[in-house]
Amino acid sequence: MPALNAEQRKALEDEIKILGDEIRKLKAEKADAGVIKERVEKMLKRKAELGTDQQKPGKFVLKTPKGTRDYGPAQMAVRESVLRTVTDSFKKHGAETIDTPVFELRDVLMGKYGEEGGKLVYDLQDQGGELLSMRYDLTVPFARYLAMNKVSNIKRYHIAKVYRRDQPVMTRGRYREFYQCDFDIAGQYDLMLPEAECLKIVDEVLSAIEIGEFFINLNHRLILEGMFAVSGIPAKEFKTICSSVDKLDKTPWAEVEEEMIKEKGLTKEQTTKLGQFVRFRELNPTLTNVELLEQMSQLDGLGANDKFKKGAEELKVLIEYVDIYGVKSVRYEPSLARGLDYYTGAIYEAVAPKALEGTEVEKSEETAGQPVGVGSVAAGGRYDGLVGMFAAKTNVPCVGVSFGIERLFAIKEARQKAAVKTFRTCETEVFVASPQKNLLKERMKLVNTLWSAGIKTEMAYKANPKGLTQFQYAEEKLIPLVVIVGEREIQEGIVKLRDVVTREEKDVTLDSLVTVIRERLAAL
Amino acid sequence: MPALNAEQRKALEDEIKILGDEIRKLKAEKADAGVIKERVEKMLKRKAELGTDQQKPGKFVLKTPKGTRDYGPAQMAVRESVLRTVTDSFKKHGAETIDTPVFELRDVLMGKYGEEGGKLVYDLQDQGGELLSMRYDLTVPFARYLAMNKVSNIKRYHIAKVYRRDQPVMTRGRYREFYQCDFDIAGQYDLMLPEAECLKIVDEVLSAIEIGEFFINLNHRLILEGMFAVSGIPAKEFKTICSSVDKLDKTPWAEVEEEMIKEKGLTKEQTTKLGQFVRFRELNPTLTNVELLEQMSQLDGLGANDKFKKGAEELKVLIEYVDIYGVKSVRYEPSLARGLDYYTGAIYEAVAPKALEGTEVEKSEETAGQPVGVGSVAAGGRYDGLVGMFAAKTNVPCVGVSFGIERLFAIKEARQKAAVKTFRTCETEVFVASPQKNLLKERMKLVNTLWSAGIKTEMAYKANPKGLTQFQYAEEKLIPLVVIVGEREIQEGIVKLRDVVTREEKDVTLDSLVTVIRERLAAL
Repeated sequence: MPALNAEQRKALEDEIKILGDEIRKLKAEKADAGVIKERVEKMLKRKAELGTDQQKPGKFVLKTPKGTRDYGPAQMAVRESVLRTVTDSFKKHGAETIDTPVFELRDVLMGKYGEEGGKLVYDLQDQGGELLSMRYDLTVPFARYLAMNKVSNIKRYHIAKVYRRDQPVMTRGRYREFYQCDFDIAGQYDLMLPEAECLKIVDEVLSAIEIGEFFINLNHRLILEGMFAVSGIPAKEFKTICSSVDKLDKTPWAEVEEEMIKEKGLTKEQTTKLGQFVRFRELNPTLTNVELLEQMSQLDGLGANDKFKKGAEELKVLIEYVDIYGVKSVRYEPSLARGLDYYTGAIYEAVAPKALEGTEVEKSEETAGQPVGVGSVAAGGRYDGLVGMFAAKTNVPCVGVSFGIERLFAIKEARQKAAVKTFRTCETEVFVASPQKNLLKERMKLVNTLWSAGIKTEMAYKANPKGLTQFQYAEEKLIPLVVIVGEREIQEGIVKLRDVVTREEKDVTLDSLVTVIRERLAAL
Repeated sequence: MPALNAEQRKALEDEIKILGDEIRKLKAEKADAGVIKERVEKMLKRKAELGTDQQKPGKFVLKTPKGTRDYGPAQMAVRESVLRTVTDSFKKHGAETIDTPVFELRDVLMGKYGEEGGKLVYDLQDQGGELLSMRYDLTVPFARYLAMNKVSNIKRYHIAKVYRRDQPVMTRGRYREFYQCDFDIAGQYDLMLPEAECLKIVDEVLSAIEIGEFFINLNHRLILEGMFAVSGIPAKEFKTICSSVDKLDKTPWAEVEEEMIKEKGLTKEQTTKLGQFVRFRELNPTLTNVELLEQMSQLDGLGANDKFKKGAEELKVLIEYVDIYGVKSVRYEPSLARGLDYYTGAIYEAVAPKALEGTEVEKSEETAGQPVGVGSVAAGGRYDGLVGMFAAKTNVPCVGVSFGIERLFAIKEARQKAAVKTFRTCETEVFVASPQKNLLKERMKLVNTLWSAGIKTEMAYKANPKGLTQFQYAEEKLIPLVVIVGEREIQEGIVKLRDVVTREEKDVTLDSLVTVIRERLAAL
């Protein structure tokens, strides 16, 4: 027998299905046995034709690509609630939003992420035409957007997924596909005003999301360059020494110093000098931000260095501004030294050391002997040179902040679980039910009345659903109200309105139903 | 001279900038000429060091990949307003949302889109590890999600970008990266109840978006199979003849018939029979949907065909249900024949023939001799077999609808332009301004007070911005209110509140400012 093509198979399957339906109907109607037999024989024949050619579904593994995941309704509900908080804050500060393609010309990304980053870029296959790569962050596409569209002023946010072929550690929330959430201000503005607004937004968002105590660590590229120069560290060692210094939030000084001497070739004299600078906050924990900056400038010639002086002056202005904005979480931290591939001025990073306290995540990781903590939940700074890499002679200074939104999702999820709060995955307000049979159309009319009134309403997609099943559905989905219709109610022109939590029921006339439901919903 | 590395260049550039600032300051302060000269010489020396090693920005073309585009703030505002309407409707019907990775294992997509579709899939480069491809639609990932997570019941929507390496026609809105917006109901439910809700949602969304008159054409796979069988057309020709029949919305019968005879090998007898079926609505434009179905069953043995009979019975149930739901836009259309790669039951497609009437798009295209019209704005149907392709022996029947959301964006944009409506790209409610100098901190305090009250507020990022510039900004961005602070106001403990449209100003005490602004905003 020649193999069936998809159409032929489909046609046979349809015919078998129809014959099956018919036979069941004939049997139910107790039809003539001969008629039934004829139909059964026809169906068996069709099944035989199909039988030798049953399609075998492929045996491939059902999974998402390595380092990626689906977001089910529960995760999406968390995600949407966090993103609503974040975008509300962005909009409160007058931001617009943009979107860019998920891939860029390979040349646009090339050379922007250092040697390490470059290796992690996903490339698309050359299928003829342009060479493309998946975006690695939202900052380089933003700079490309500004240069290409000759935009010199914008305050924008962008929430989208980015891609890194990194080694995923999915239990700790490191994925190859993940959301970024960036807010940036581009334009020629006066000193530290955009920076102050970025820090205000970080403070506002992290307060609103309720992740417990948090700090925004603050530093300045020129201060780092100044400290390195006074310590006698050559400019070409800037990046590598920054990466050592930046470990001080987790690693003791002795270890970091050893790394700088043994692996990076600094002298003990150099590290001793550098140490007194970058550890200044650690060694003087009671000083205010301004006191730290002022006393540091008394140290060992640091105050005489032009770069340090300028960086410190700028930060003092920023500190004064965020004070006016009521931001209490900013901490001057001389050892903060990350993101310096493109940052040119102030840099900052928010940390929430206790965000996972009391959650399952903490408990499970303690058992495994892993440190609890979520690292950075937001980071940013000033990057004045990036747009110029795409359009020579243009000067579009930028400053921004990127929220570690995946971490915020994870924190929110864990804290909600710990608080035994349940997330609603749908917003349905009313479920229309009937415990009796043959009332499908009555339910449909009621549902339609409520839809027309803008009330979020569902009913069972069954002609005669069981009463209990309907109530259980409403309870599981946390739907607050159930409208119940039955024969008696129809005759009396009423329905019963049931409160799902208290299980109280009361009669409501059809005329007043929408009004009563609106009042009940408003009172929830 | 050895080439400078990026760090060294950066360090030099920073030093030159600082020296420049200093020199300007010294000159302003009329400092000692010798001091200034020393600094200028130092700066020139640094510039010389840098000079021979200036970085030349690459000469590559600044563009987005072929067939893709950026969405600027204006497009995003349109997009967000359309998506809000759509998601509001989905939520009113109790839908949840999910998200899946932008790429899938290549095997997941393979063989799901026919020969043509398969060629248009974007593949990722083999960088070691799994072979991946970009998603081509949201339906196959949905089926994969259901099979993989063993979900047998869900009502979900998914709004995300999909990728097709098609020939882009960007002037007519055909892109290689575009949004899809899908609503689907998976689960074993009673006949036509989920279909009726899908049609209700299409009707609700298209009414709310205000795209002018629209129709939802309706057909059924079994009716098509029945008509073909009665016309003597073999099952293996199903798909190719469907693609001819489906052209009848734009092409006269004579042309379609010629194609079927000359290119697809049908006989005149076959096409004549088929013609009377598929043109039945065209030839009987005054009949109701139910009359059409009933009178068709009288034609030429069609009523005796099991498939036609079953399809027609099912559609009659659906038509009764959408009637209860108050949907007036549904039209039974026997020539609707698309999406049949995987649709197994009812199929539908919404068209909005006059959506672009009176817009620039219409005018420009008339000039070019092109037909006006936007084709399908939503389409869907029942697909009961797709999940089974991923998990043998599972049976998760599905029905859904996909909105042509890019077309809806384009229609909304064109109609807004025609109505000379301006879209706000930000939501700022108040701009805090000062026409006088040295009031930066006063502005910052006011801005902060309003932020704390949840009022969307901006101010200029300049220490001493010009009065006129500030007012112009508020007017351009359509910000309704301006708070003005000056020396007199500070002394009296008041501010001026300006209505941007009427330009009226009145004094408001600081104590009552938030209350007054809230009242004014509520009255807008």
